Amino acid sequence: MHDILRWRRDVRHFLTDPVPDPVIDRLRAAMDMAPSVGNSRPWRVLRVENPERRERVQAIFEACNSAAAAGFDHGTRSEYLRLKLAGLRDAPLHLAVFTETAPAEGRGLGRRTMPETLQFSTVMAIHTLWLVARAENIGVGWVSILDPAALHALFDAPQSWEFTGYLCVGYAEFDDDRPLLHRAAWQADTPTHWKQC
Amino acid sequence: MHDILRWRRDVRHFLTDPVPDPVIDRLRAAMDMAPSVGNSRPWRVLRVENPERRERVQAIFEACNSAAAAGFDHGTRSEYLRLKLAGLRDAPLHLAVFTETAPAEGRGLGRRTMPETLQFSTVMAIHTLWLVARAENIGVGWVSILDPAALHALFDAPQSWEFTGYLCVGYAEFDDDRPLLHRAAWQADTPTHWKQC
Repeated sequence: MHDILRWRRDVRHFLTDPVPDPVIDRLRAAMDMAPSVGNSRPWRVLRVENPERRERVQAIFEACNSAAAAGFDHGTRSEYLRLKLAGLRDAPLHLAVFTETAPAEGRGLGRRTMPETLQFSTVMAIHTLWLVARAENIGVGWVSILDPAALHALFDAPQSWEFTGYLCVGYAEFDDDRPLLHRAAWQADTPTHWKQC
Repeated sequence: MHDILRWRRDVRHFLTDPVPDPVIDRLRAAMDMAPSVGNSRPWRVLRVENPERRERVQAIFEACNSAAAAGFDHGTRSEYLRLKLAGLRDAPLHLAVFTETAPAEGRGLGRRTMPETLQFSTVMAIHTLWLVARAENIGVGWVSILDPAALHALFDAPQSWEFTGYLCVGYAEFDDDRPLLHRAAWQADTPTHWKQC
């Protein structure tokens, strides 16, 4: 468990080799075991194969990334632009992950005061997939530099779905046990804040 | 990994035996390895030892749980009220987990279009703790039937903190590899929705 956690890193450098179908099936099956509020299992996964849709995702990422870069001062901007923040071009498997915000499953249990626990459930399912992928020697990168409304429209998602995250999945170009942003000196690792009260 | 995922269940029946400090230290260290947007590590954990504070959390849970029960029709209400939905009375270790919504760490990277990825990062840190706890033979229950504003006030949390979840941690009264809500016939397990597009 410790090894999997330690080697589970956000991957942005992928080989283009396809992920075999039996492995993809195991990743999907792993999500079935994720915790969810009221056992509501609200994650909805789209496996994106259509090349035009992939191209549109790349374009949305580039627009959001440029806008983010423009928000930094000059020195930080060049540092930011040197970072590789997504592996959309090379990753063989793309997953667009949404959350059903009005699932019949769970019958409303546990989410009355905190409806965001539905999205939280999807996040834990993604994290489950991420860890199992690592155990299969597969890397995952979570692309968050995206406009959720644009993604929702692109995939013609039902009104009740909320965009949660876009995942690049594939074999990593290299192994790494340290966060890339730490290695690139963008942000050091800091220990968990933990206080008694 | 598969065994840990399968046996990782929401626990609401705890023994009162304390969790040894070295185990607690390992749980905290595990959170350090969780993924976070921009490596921002926004989770803030309060270990709740004060008996009055624990009593207040129990009272907030009871109020929210009664309100939730009142929202169901008569038949469902009795079914709902038979469920045990929290182990606050017995669990020896209580963790109130918040998210810093304006962390210096990460320098804003990756969260411009989706600021909710900060909460998502905390959720993955909680899930990491949950899985490592299971590997240590320790159970975790996530209590979501709580009013986040009341929790924020109770712990006098900084304005920039957002309440994410309240965890009961301890040795489970019994082992179980099926979700309690599935076993209690509240909500069956359904497989992951996964479509190609």
